[in-house]
Amino acid sequence: MQGAIISIGDELTLGQTVDTNSAYLSQQLVKRGIFPRYHVTVPDDRGQIARAITHAAQTVPVVLVTGGLGPTEDDLTREALADAMGVDLILDEASLQHISSFFARRNRPMPERNRTQAMHPRGAEAIPNSNGTAPGIKAKLHDTTIYVTPGVPRELYVMFEKTIGPELDKLAGERAILTTTLHTFGQGESDLAARLGHLMQRNRNPTVGTTVSNGYVSVRIRSDFPRKLAENELNQAVHAVKSALGAICFGRDDQTLPGAVVGLLVEKKLTMATAESCTGGLLGAMVTDVPGSSVVYVGGWVTYSNQMKASQLGVPPEVIEAHGAVSVETARAMAVSARERSGADAAVSITGIAGPDGGTAEKPVGTVYVGLALRDRARVFLLRLGGDRETIRDRAAKSALQLLRLLLMGEKTTGVTWAEEQ
Amino acid sequence: MQGAIISIGDELTLGQTVDTNSAYLSQQLVKRGIFPRYHVTVPDDRGQIARAITHAAQTVPVVLVTGGLGPTEDDLTREALADAMGVDLILDEASLQHISSFFARRNRPMPERNRTQAMHPRGAEAIPNSNGTAPGIKAKLHDTTIYVTPGVPRELYVMFEKTIGPELDKLAGERAILTTTLHTFGQGESDLAARLGHLMQRNRNPTVGTTVSNGYVSVRIRSDFPRKLAENELNQAVHAVKSALGAICFGRDDQTLPGAVVGLLVEKKLTMATAESCTGGLLGAMVTDVPGSSVVYVGGWVTYSNQMKASQLGVPPEVIEAHGAVSVETARAMAVSARERSGADAAVSITGIAGPDGGTAEKPVGTVYVGLALRDRARVFLLRLGGDRETIRDRAAKSALQLLRLLLMGEKTTGVTWAEEQ
Repeated sequence: MQGAIISIGDELTLGQTVDTNSAYLSQQLVKRGIFPRYHVTVPDDRGQIARAITHAAQTVPVVLVTGGLGPTEDDLTREALADAMGVDLILDEASLQHISSFFARRNRPMPERNRTQAMHPRGAEAIPNSNGTAPGIKAKLHDTTIYVTPGVPRELYVMFEKTIGPELDKLAGERAILTTTLHTFGQGESDLAARLGHLMQRNRNPTVGTTVSNGYVSVRIRSDFPRKLAENELNQAVHAVKSALGAICFGRDDQTLPGAVVGLLVEKKLTMATAESCTGGLLGAMVTDVPGSSVVYVGGWVTYSNQMKASQLGVPPEVIEAHGAVSVETARAMAVSARERSGADAAVSITGIAGPDGGTAEKPVGTVYVGLALRDRARVFLLRLGGDRETIRDRAAKSALQLLRLLLMGEKTTGVTWAEEQ
Repeated sequence: MQGAIISIGDELTLGQTVDTNSAYLSQQLVKRGIFPRYHVTVPDDRGQIARAITHAAQTVPVVLVTGGLGPTEDDLTREALADAMGVDLILDEASLQHISSFFARRNRPMPERNRTQAMHPRGAEAIPNSNGTAPGIKAKLHDTTIYVTPGVPRELYVMFEKTIGPELDKLAGERAILTTTLHTFGQGESDLAARLGHLMQRNRNPTVGTTVSNGYVSVRIRSDFPRKLAENELNQAVHAVKSALGAICFGRDDQTLPGAVVGLLVEKKLTMATAESCTGGLLGAMVTDVPGSSVVYVGGWVTYSNQMKASQLGVPPEVIEAHGAVSVETARAMAVSARERSGADAAVSITGIAGPDGGTAEKPVGTVYVGLALRDRARVFLLRLGGDRETIRDRAAKSALQLLRLLLMGEKTTGVTWAEEQ
């Protein structure tokens, strides 16, 4: 079975926005054995949208359309779909109700123009949107099923997970391509390739490949078999890959590094605190991004200025004076003091030079110290990070999480290539 | 003048790779006044590629094709282009020379299959590739000019900058399409549309449209005129849109909300501190993402637990006891205490319920208080935010930044629709 994907929006055809929805929708089709025949992107032009829908409906039995469902005059997907179907638009009372209550919950009157979002072509059905005002639309054209979703990714994802995905499961074909991804942090792509060895050979099935994204190296596994075999083959490959990766592998698919750390702390009934300088709160933000993190995370300090390090966190001014704010000694004092003052079992500190300014010959931009105080022991790691300010800060926070995770697991930290214990 | 963009590759149609080339190519066309009519993505299928090229050549005078020029069996763009042109493939000696010397410089023998990369359709021309082995191809079909480039971004970019871009400059029409974007935070898309009124009418030029991304509503302005007029018309539209938007507009193009806040603090020679509960450090992370923020940002507290609020930040335990951690009173005490303890001119506090758990009938998930202590005055705002945990935290931090910005500018905060002063 084949499908087609239509993305709509001037911001896409003009190149102002990179289209990430098409890749997401492709994955959703592929894992159900529906092969995307093509993607097409058209501007907010009623005629072009209608022609793209008509063509797709003549070519494939499943069409996914995304974008152009907003409340403004340049949102024309509803009208274009109605044109392609040769019907008029009607008001859907349930959708109108949903949109009004969306605004009511926020104590705001519903702007009149949001009313258009409750319209859909006669004969179509509304798809509920739990993350926004615009309902999706399900319609039939000839024998083709068309699903229209908003272009806002988080609205699209929820709509797909709750409604469209389960419907497509029923349409699904004989062959299945199952994919999964294992996530690592702490080694480069070629180090990982060396660990994986023959598992990465191109002619194997399942195939194993690596991708780098935001400092994480992820190992993608794709199993392409008749439906009954695909899952078993996938699981065997996952097992082999995990063994090869070892402790730097922290999760699979939706699992995150902060989630792994929080899970480990919960399991071990430990609490943690943070003391951040160059990351400015990023580490705390990553930890608290995990729902339920309040059970293990008590809080911390953002000591961006030296005065805050001394007066609020209690780093002895003479330590900063003697060794500098970016030093083994300051990182250790930050972690130890954060643990003592917060009463947490573990404390993590980060101090470094994120750039673009502030680097010296001895401590260039990218020099970061991570302190880990766990019960009565404190250790400090030196990281030498590359990239711009944003990258250095991001990798520093992730490194601190991975180091804490490895220590909590009782694993060696020597497998982590960018960190040296000081 | 119009153009079309064809991206080729199974990894794109299968959703394993997000297509960033199309956005890049669109921008390249747009800035030369060539308007991308559509993008289409097809798999490594010779028939489909040929049909996509044929259709594009019948529709527009400029076609950019990217991908499928590699040396392996699944790279079929050369063959497909020859099919569309109705000619055979011939070997280009100069290209073969280039490919051999590419390998020679790396002290490697040229694999036999790289020889195919020196082939192109009879009548076409090779485009030099200074970053890889595959030359690009320039061909004519009917009256349409077709440029084929490799899919590897760095090869594509260099080929575009050195050869294709300058050629397109000559083709470029009399018309130029200039675009710019103004960014706002604090009102919904439809409220903004009401403010912009007739400026958003579809038949106007410059056109004005809105896009929502991560809570920011951005206003895109596109000026489509004869080359000499386009810039002046764009500037006039920017002026009109800015007036209509008022103070909630914080920047243009690459400018960010944290950047605007830091800039304002620098300008006014003020410092700031933060005290965060539900955002867990996200506000501090946003502020310190701005290079040079250390001049104005001293640091802060992440008081995730009530104990940290009391013992480290100095919120009176009886305030938390009487009103709860998520309350006007706690938010005020957090901001006031953060300002006093840090010695900063301004302090911003955030306390709220990010979910998914912790909501009550009186204070549902999404209830967030923002406290702003500026010199001797403290104010508290109640936000009622929607969405999931990540969204609530993100919007809370951005709201705090926008509220601080408006207060620093001496602007009314009543234009911000989700915030009510308590």
